[in-house]
Amino acid sequence: MENFTYFNPTKIEFGTGKEQLIGQHLAGHGIKKVLLCYGSERIKREGLFDLVGKSLAEKGIEWVELGGIVSNPVISKVREGVALARAHQVDAILSVGGGSVLDSVKAIAAGVLHDGDVWDLFVGKARIEFALPLFAILTLAATGSEMNPGAVVTNDETKEKFFISNPALFPRVSIVNPALMQGVTRDYLVYSASDVIAHLIEAYFTATVHPKLQSRLVETLINTVIETTEALLADPADYDARAQFAWAATLALNGLTYSGAAGFSYPNHAIEHSLSALFNVPHGAGLSVVVPAWMKWYAGRNPAQFERFAKSVFGVESSEQGIAALQGWYNKIGTPTRLPQLGIKETDLPAIVENVQKNVRIFGITETYTPEVVTVILKNAL
Amino acid sequence: MENFTYFNPTKIEFGTGKEQLIGQHLAGHGIKKVLLCYGSERIKREGLFDLVGKSLAEKGIEWVELGGIVSNPVISKVREGVALARAHQVDAILSVGGGSVLDSVKAIAAGVLHDGDVWDLFVGKARIEFALPLFAILTLAATGSEMNPGAVVTNDETKEKFFISNPALFPRVSIVNPALMQGVTRDYLVYSASDVIAHLIEAYFTATVHPKLQSRLVETLINTVIETTEALLADPADYDARAQFAWAATLALNGLTYSGAAGFSYPNHAIEHSLSALFNVPHGAGLSVVVPAWMKWYAGRNPAQFERFAKSVFGVESSEQGIAALQGWYNKIGTPTRLPQLGIKETDLPAIVENVQKNVRIFGITETYTPEVVTVILKNAL
Repeated sequence: MENFTYFNPTKIEFGTGKEQLIGQHLAGHGIKKVLLCYGSERIKREGLFDLVGKSLAEKGIEWVELGGIVSNPVISKVREGVALARAHQVDAILSVGGGSVLDSVKAIAAGVLHDGDVWDLFVGKARIEFALPLFAILTLAATGSEMNPGAVVTNDETKEKFFISNPALFPRVSIVNPALMQGVTRDYLVYSASDVIAHLIEAYFTATVHPKLQSRLVETLINTVIETTEALLADPADYDARAQFAWAATLALNGLTYSGAAGFSYPNHAIEHSLSALFNVPHGAGLSVVVPAWMKWYAGRNPAQFERFAKSVFGVESSEQGIAALQGWYNKIGTPTRLPQLGIKETDLPAIVENVQKNVRIFGITETYTPEVVTVILKNAL
Repeated sequence: MENFTYFNPTKIEFGTGKEQLIGQHLAGHGIKKVLLCYGSERIKREGLFDLVGKSLAEKGIEWVELGGIVSNPVISKVREGVALARAHQVDAILSVGGGSVLDSVKAIAAGVLHDGDVWDLFVGKARIEFALPLFAILTLAATGSEMNPGAVVTNDETKEKFFISNPALFPRVSIVNPALMQGVTRDYLVYSASDVIAHLIEAYFTATVHPKLQSRLVETLINTVIETTEALLADPADYDARAQFAWAATLALNGLTYSGAAGFSYPNHAIEHSLSALFNVPHGAGLSVVVPAWMKWYAGRNPAQFERFAKSVFGVESSEQGIAALQGWYNKIGTPTRLPQLGIKETDLPAIVENVQKNVRIFGITETYTPEVVTVILKNAL
């Protein structure tokens, strides 16, 4: 096991009705005025917005609204948030939504205290020193952003989908109420399953050091995602399945599964971010296309772990059978596994490969993921 | 899954050489003077004390020593620590040792800021409001105290072994270097394995709500403890086994495995604490006696979970076979499974049963664990 530091100060409030605690938590942190960020108007139609407003009002907390944050969130919207937060001198940012809203909120929280354009923080022109305190009410479980210090945002001008990560970006409090996720569409449920599995398998397969304890934790979470996704497809009102799915999504990227692992990287994310940046495909849909294609290319480099995966997750013997089983499961639940299903053709590959080269630089894996290799992987997905 | 709050602000520094960071972490928290608590003089003979002293001196941090803390730590020693901390006006407490030292440090940290006798905090005469910041360098992995807010101490006059728990008692930083644990004796290694398994099975078997995700996490950790204990018995210098064992011990009682579970209790601990309090047996040795005896009595109350345990941990079919396999494994590694191995005779049972009644009151399980029931369980262990 490699040396590591584990530190995760986010307080999770998990369960039904917990959104009503938001005013209390903000007041407990001395917050007087927040920028309240959200995506579609669904939270207003479904009553969540009113509940949040009531909870804030009860504690005398003012708010300014920023709605309309989209999936694959964009830096232009983040800039709007930064300007709004400054103009109204808010002292915290509150995300009410899924990972896209929360990642935007993290960028806004850092951007407000950065003297310059917020995109500087994504491209290494400036470092994050501080951020406004940030809080979240989660309405979709997938990204794990509710209990980690990372955020991914797309530059809508340059078509770059890059990330930031800094301890200042841990949410102070994240409220995870599985009942708020019952309205998630069938498509977004299966994309979310794909996203969580991708978070779990990156280090699991690529680490040069991956202790068995950590492998077992990963398999526990993948098996939970598989079972609960199927339960939710059969019955979207199954609260317990929704809750286990949500908690598995949080644990999948909160530091637990990769503490003690070493030498791992995020090649599937590096490749998928280009699909999202160029074609605006849902992140999870892009990942269910990239992951099996990447696995076919990569399996020979870590055969023991691929066989372990095959046995522990799907009860099959060989590495090939394990990959086929995962791809088959993606097909069964209805998340794409081929580029054409995303509307991407072979003639698009050169543009994707070029875009991926920016990502692999940021992820520090240029030596392995040359344009030739990325082309081979993408061709596996045609 | 039940509603829960998950919050664990302890920073873990895990791995070789990490003890050298202690001065830096204390300085980072603005600490100028610490009470440095330890157990036997082993840490001086083996050089750890000098390393710690050097690290403190480099940051200009003064220290006052309190050595001689014993296993099954006692409140009289805690009182000595409280007096010393007050006399020298230290602004933090540092534990260098295993769970006994750390639990004593927690009691001292709370006791210093309590206007009255520290035992008041254990018997509910007063509530913990604040505690001095506390830090730990762990030399034995078992209790999980390094990443939780609880502590167990024995009143050496009244023969009561009681606990405290309060968020103020989370260590700020815990340093876990598996290499420092290489000198742990064979006996204490197997007692530690028993302690960790007991932490994992209490909620697993007794919870009225125990989601499958949490059951899988428990099984992952138990399987890790079993495998790594065997590896360490074969080769005490196996660093990777030592590291996985240590991290499993931390995760076993840091909130992870029982978040979302409900209606669980700690009957095995309630019974064992009386064995330790009356006969000063090592906690883990007492638990490996109590646990199989309790399981035989309890199995019929939760047959599905006992069958799950049998299959997932030992690959056997029935509840009875699972219990026999655990007891057989304890026998194999050499931790006691019968009261006479602890020097306890049938004529001692009434005194134990009487002492247990205090514990079950504190643990809130008096209705189930009547004197008659506790007698039946203890007789299973004769």
